[in-house]
Amino acid sequence: MSNFGFRHLRVVNPYAAAFREARSAVGASALLARAEEYKTVAGAVADCTLVVGTTAVRHRELQHPLRRLEYGARLIHKQLTSNRVALLFGSEKFGLSNAALSHCHWLMRIPTCEENISMNLGQAVAVCLYEMVRDAKTARQTEKVERAAAAELERITTTLLEAMRSSGYLDRRPIADVEDRMRRLVHRLNLPARDAVVWLGILRQIVWKLQPAKPDQGR
Amino acid sequence: MSNFGFRHLRVVNPYAAAFREARSAVGASALLARAEEYKTVAGAVADCTLVVGTTAVRHRELQHPLRRLEYGARLIHKQLTSNRVALLFGSEKFGLSNAALSHCHWLMRIPTCEENISMNLGQAVAVCLYEMVRDAKTARQTEKVERAAAAELERITTTLLEAMRSSGYLDRRPIADVEDRMRRLVHRLNLPARDAVVWLGILRQIVWKLQPAKPDQGR
Repeated sequence: MSNFGFRHLRVVNPYAAAFREARSAVGASALLARAEEYKTVAGAVADCTLVVGTTAVRHRELQHPLRRLEYGARLIHKQLTSNRVALLFGSEKFGLSNAALSHCHWLMRIPTCEENISMNLGQAVAVCLYEMVRDAKTARQTEKVERAAAAELERITTTLLEAMRSSGYLDRRPIADVEDRMRRLVHRLNLPARDAVVWLGILRQIVWKLQPAKPDQGR
Repeated sequence: MSNFGFRHLRVVNPYAAAFREARSAVGASALLARAEEYKTVAGAVADCTLVVGTTAVRHRELQHPLRRLEYGARLIHKQLTSNRVALLFGSEKFGLSNAALSHCHWLMRIPTCEENISMNLGQAVAVCLYEMVRDAKTARQTEKVERAAAAELERITTTLLEAMRSSGYLDRRPIADVEDRMRRLVHRLNLPARDAVVWLGILRQIVWKLQPAKPDQGR
């Protein structure tokens, strides 16, 4: 809840020992300190205009419409702008009782495999709340790594060509249109700016070392 | 992993006691029994063509492109058809080391709140794998509750009108176009077929009870 910005935790008859222990959870202590305890589900959802139950069960005779999380979350999202919505989770072991389910307008299920439909409670809550906050629109944003500018790539290409010539590579394996080919090869590396500096440094040192022996080569 | 159908767990230097305990996890024991242990990250990802690291950190000087989960999962999905992809998680406490991160092609982050970016490891894995399997296209499907047919609604409307007349409601509060209004009122209930039967039964009993006293009324 704390990871995804949900603030109102209401618990119905929590197991005292476990709940006391949970209150000391790292990173979420404020949320847990504010948690409200209720004696009944009816009391906990009294001020909510939409109550959505969560369940792993499917294919059993349904008393409620059952929606997949992807769609259910969208419906909840629409209501949230003007209404208070309760998302109801049952105990880890038994899920929601029929009595608790009777307070729900509809049910939602996480699209798990048939082979293992029963989820850990904390993981189920995390997945549901993530679906509520996920944003398909801004999803394409990549926090960008700055790429090397063309001039830097040109310096790398030139230095690489020099290294190829000095090392005798081109004498042994002549390449047609070698400059264009090497420029494309370097561009395909899609180098980050910071990496381009490093590569250029390495190539320059190699080119320097490949030069015919000079008095100060052993520096 | 088991809930979302992922089968290949590889662990690098697991804490032996915790890992032995985990192997007895309900519902996922087969997956854990098949888990492969490695001494190094390099070994664990050796046969993968894409290695994606997960991190809570942002805004720090990035060595890798950092993508939001919603977008990253889509990129991974495209690769999965023809390649083996590793999704790398660090320890709960410290995340991935810089050494481990250096094996990654890029990084992915779950869109958590600034106030609490650090997630429980199991919840982080669950959220990432859910995003991998979520299906926006089939999301609109609601497992439907069968609605009442028009004839059933008409029977309810007729019986309701009879109850209103017999109880004297319409004498005290005459309604123009009462039949049309009540029919619309009943249609707005959007009754499931199974509920329509119940409502009709209740109304019929009320209508029966409202009839002028008969010898057998006290049955």
